[in-house]
Amino acid sequence: MKFNLISCLVGVSAASAVCRAEGNNPPEPPKNYAVAMYNSFDIIDVFGPIDVLFYLSLMKQLNLNLIAETMDPVWMRPPNQELNKFDSNFTAAFKPTHTYDNPPDNVEVLIVPGGLGMRFGNSSDIAVDYVRKTYPKLKYLLTICTGAGIAAKAGVLDGKRATTNKSAWKEVMPLGPKVKWVSPARWTIDGNIWTSSGVTSGFDLIFEFIDKIYDKEVSRKIQGAVEHVRAKDACDDPFAEWHKVPPTGDCKASS
Amino acid sequence: MKFNLISCLVGVSAASAVCRAEGNNPPEPPKNYAVAMYNSFDIIDVFGPIDVLFYLSLMKQLNLNLIAETMDPVWMRPPNQELNKFDSNFTAAFKPTHTYDNPPDNVEVLIVPGGLGMRFGNSSDIAVDYVRKTYPKLKYLLTICTGAGIAAKAGVLDGKRATTNKSAWKEVMPLGPKVKWVSPARWTIDGNIWTSSGVTSGFDLIFEFIDKIYDKEVSRKIQGAVEHVRAKDACDDPFAEWHKVPPTGDCKASS
Repeated sequence: MKFNLISCLVGVSAASAVCRAEGNNPPEPPKNYAVAMYNSFDIIDVFGPIDVLFYLSLMKQLNLNLIAETMDPVWMRPPNQELNKFDSNFTAAFKPTHTYDNPPDNVEVLIVPGGLGMRFGNSSDIAVDYVRKTYPKLKYLLTICTGAGIAAKAGVLDGKRATTNKSAWKEVMPLGPKVKWVSPARWTIDGNIWTSSGVTSGFDLIFEFIDKIYDKEVSRKIQGAVEHVRAKDACDDPFAEWHKVPPTGDCKASS
Repeated sequence: MKFNLISCLVGVSAASAVCRAEGNNPPEPPKNYAVAMYNSFDIIDVFGPIDVLFYLSLMKQLNLNLIAETMDPVWMRPPNQELNKFDSNFTAAFKPTHTYDNPPDNVEVLIVPGGLGMRFGNSSDIAVDYVRKTYPKLKYLLTICTGAGIAAKAGVLDGKRATTNKSAWKEVMPLGPKVKWVSPARWTIDGNIWTSSGVTSGFDLIFEFIDKIYDKEVSRKIQGAVEHVRAKDACDDPFAEWHKVPPTGDCKASS
């Protein structure tokens, strides 16, 4: 298969490898990030990768957009009082920068977090619609944890390899019957779609993303600064067995 | 050494162990948490432990306070334009619940994050004053990453074992010349003061904290949910060698 300069500019990773092999300039790494926020998202699904990218933003020009239903704060909180059995008051509020009605028009990388809001209630439905509409314009889609369920509902994972939090496997799989679900897998890559397993696996996904899309040396510097002990093999997923998820798909394959 | 009921109620971990050994009721685990926020804090220093505690708050009654200089949003952002060499716009804003002038009066556990705001400029000075004033009333003080520098400046680590991010070792050590700095150490415990190494080591510290202060089974459940691959040994610190920090102190000892 031949790739020309236009394919290179599309920036998908498969094209990128071929562009390099052909001696063309690789596509410009992405600059413009957005997170698809909703109430009761998991904060580490968002701010794990974002913290790592923040340090990257001191070495490369990067921009961050946080999209939510309204410009009101978006909350880390239980999605309903039933789940807050002990009447805790353990919440935090984050300021969005855009609404889904008026989103930024230059998003290249969209991060889709999971969390209790995805698993209980309908607060993440608005993110499903946004992912469906926006995916064709993206360079990369990154889902963290049960964020894969949102992308599955949006239909953009159909026919693609993907993974999710192994503790929520039985809930998320049925949301994408045409998805090639993979377990064990700390993360998967299929074309321009990257998916990670549970919450803290987002760190491993984002370091792999920086390795592949930006620069391994920069990635290593940030790893040393945040002192993250990386899983460097996508198959290194102890939580598949922990949660008794039967093996399926090929964690090694990446396209 | 004899501990009576009053010592037990103080809630320090050494007393707690003795209380159990003497058959007294162990002290009630803490419910009321606060984070000492300031601009340009590291978001994972805060929200790593907070995410884990959020899941604990669904199983135990817990409350969270976020203290900052004013009620205006507190920012993840570079502390000055010089550090933002590439003119990135990669920021996020968080809503405090209290100010340092009017803090909550029932804080039992204070979490002190590090970050660029601690290392460059003076945005964290207000946290230093608060830690100094508040420490005598706390059940536990937890510092994450270079948050140990804030506690060191406050003088509350004097004579205590503590650690910090190994990539910032040479900057932080001089802030506490009377501190018994420990390296390698993924975390340290000395009385009611827990300190962790860099950023993501906060996950390992908080799981150890939940193991010791709450319940190992609950801790294991949350670990499975967030899929964190734990360092379970405080000496398991690959970043000491990575950053060429000479060995000092005893990572195993805990009092």
